[in-house]
Amino acid sequence: MAVHALKPVPVDDLATPLGARLAIRHGRHAGPTAGMAPGYVQGNLAILPKDVAEEFLRFAVANPKPCPLLAVSEQGDPHVPSLAADLDIRTDVPRYRVWRDGGIVDEPSDLHAHWRDDLVTFVIGCSYSFESALIEDGIEMRHITKGCAVPMYRTSLATTPAGRFHGPMVVSMRPMTPANAIRAIQITGRLPNVHGAPVHLGRPDLIGIRDLGKPDYGDAVPVGPDEIPVFWACGVTPQSVIAAARPPFCITHYPGSMIVTDLRNARLAVS
Amino acid sequence: MAVHALKPVPVDDLATPLGARLAIRHGRHAGPTAGMAPGYVQGNLAILPKDVAEEFLRFAVANPKPCPLLAVSEQGDPHVPSLAADLDIRTDVPRYRVWRDGGIVDEPSDLHAHWRDDLVTFVIGCSYSFESALIEDGIEMRHITKGCAVPMYRTSLATTPAGRFHGPMVVSMRPMTPANAIRAIQITGRLPNVHGAPVHLGRPDLIGIRDLGKPDYGDAVPVGPDEIPVFWACGVTPQSVIAAARPPFCITHYPGSMIVTDLRNARLAVS
Repeated sequence: MAVHALKPVPVDDLATPLGARLAIRHGRHAGPTAGMAPGYVQGNLAILPKDVAEEFLRFAVANPKPCPLLAVSEQGDPHVPSLAADLDIRTDVPRYRVWRDGGIVDEPSDLHAHWRDDLVTFVIGCSYSFESALIEDGIEMRHITKGCAVPMYRTSLATTPAGRFHGPMVVSMRPMTPANAIRAIQITGRLPNVHGAPVHLGRPDLIGIRDLGKPDYGDAVPVGPDEIPVFWACGVTPQSVIAAARPPFCITHYPGSMIVTDLRNARLAVS
Repeated sequence: MAVHALKPVPVDDLATPLGARLAIRHGRHAGPTAGMAPGYVQGNLAILPKDVAEEFLRFAVANPKPCPLLAVSEQGDPHVPSLAADLDIRTDVPRYRVWRDGGIVDEPSDLHAHWRDDLVTFVIGCSYSFESALIEDGIEMRHITKGCAVPMYRTSLATTPAGRFHGPMVVSMRPMTPANAIRAIQITGRLPNVHGAPVHLGRPDLIGIRDLGKPDYGDAVPVGPDEIPVFWACGVTPQSVIAAARPPFCITHYPGSMIVTDLRNARLAVS
């Protein structure tokens, strides 16, 4: 009686955050999360042991533009109920990176083998949310049009150090007309939990960027003759700062594989 | 008995809007209003006969950045109670310009000889208010530091026409670092009644400005090597549009001689 073989495979509604998390949690989605649960906030992930976590929390608070905190878990608790009641940080990200002493030692699709009672989870705002707001305003995101990753650059702008964490700010760049840049500043200024207003515009040389055509991360995109480059603080900053600090142990999300939350992008705007 | 000769001359408190208006109303202050009643809104003035006023009102509504309306009077009424209970537009501006067919025919210090029952008064927001907010944020206003007028330029940006009113937008320019430009956009974006966010930045060539050193109105100011020019829609736009339309009759304020209102700059910010 192989009746159980007829049990239907669930059809995931990837347009909802719960549907997206269930698909990821049960191994039915393993790739990037871009485009899942449109309208809902996705977050960057950093998981650190308690003693390192205390320093990293101070770093994040001191650097809210590159490192805007959406939530910090209780120590050892894999749940983050302020982001979603069912959320389990050990299973709800498609792929993770496990680091020891600054080097990647594993890229698992769940964290049960690595979980510890001293771990603290940080969920950090991500540019997907503000890009969504800009696109709704009619502003082109060149890297999305081109189907590539946003260009990112290490800059001469220093982060504010805290404990062992310090280093240069990494920025993402989006080219736009000056009029759209002004709109984009107004829109993203109201979204401090997802990097907020840009940190720079118009003059890459003033923040140590020599060649826009050679990003340090991501892909180069063309800047039109009537456009200026606009630079936002980037969530790669905490990752690069953590990597440089070489903590004995830490976990991050695999690039592009974010945690999908129940928070609505539209609710992020401050008045 | 020349006792009346001992009657004391009133000491005007020019730091209050009522004190400033009384001094102006009674001829004890005839010059520019810059610096009077700090913290209170000053306005540009346009007074037009009813038939022209209807077209100008549509022009202003269609062009809120160069022509933000603080108040429009009842026809023939020299009072504008929403700006101050005592305000009399015929006496409370230090100096006026009276125009006929596009030419200046008088520059009186009160309007009693020119007042008509068909006149409608427009009070238009002015950059003094947003400059005050920027200075409070710690952003230098170069023209104030240099003790000169803000540089203004005719641009290739067209206003939205209404009736006989049309023509290029005039902008004012303030140089600042990119980081300050971003702050200034966030701050002035919340002040739509006094020109709001800039209309352009960084690339004067894209709006038809060939040489920042040769403004069409006001004085040139230096732009530092780490600065970009930031351009706001300017209240000279409605004046130049009115002058070009050559209405049979109209009255404006004399440049720099504004109407001082009871509105607080701090109350202008929208959330």
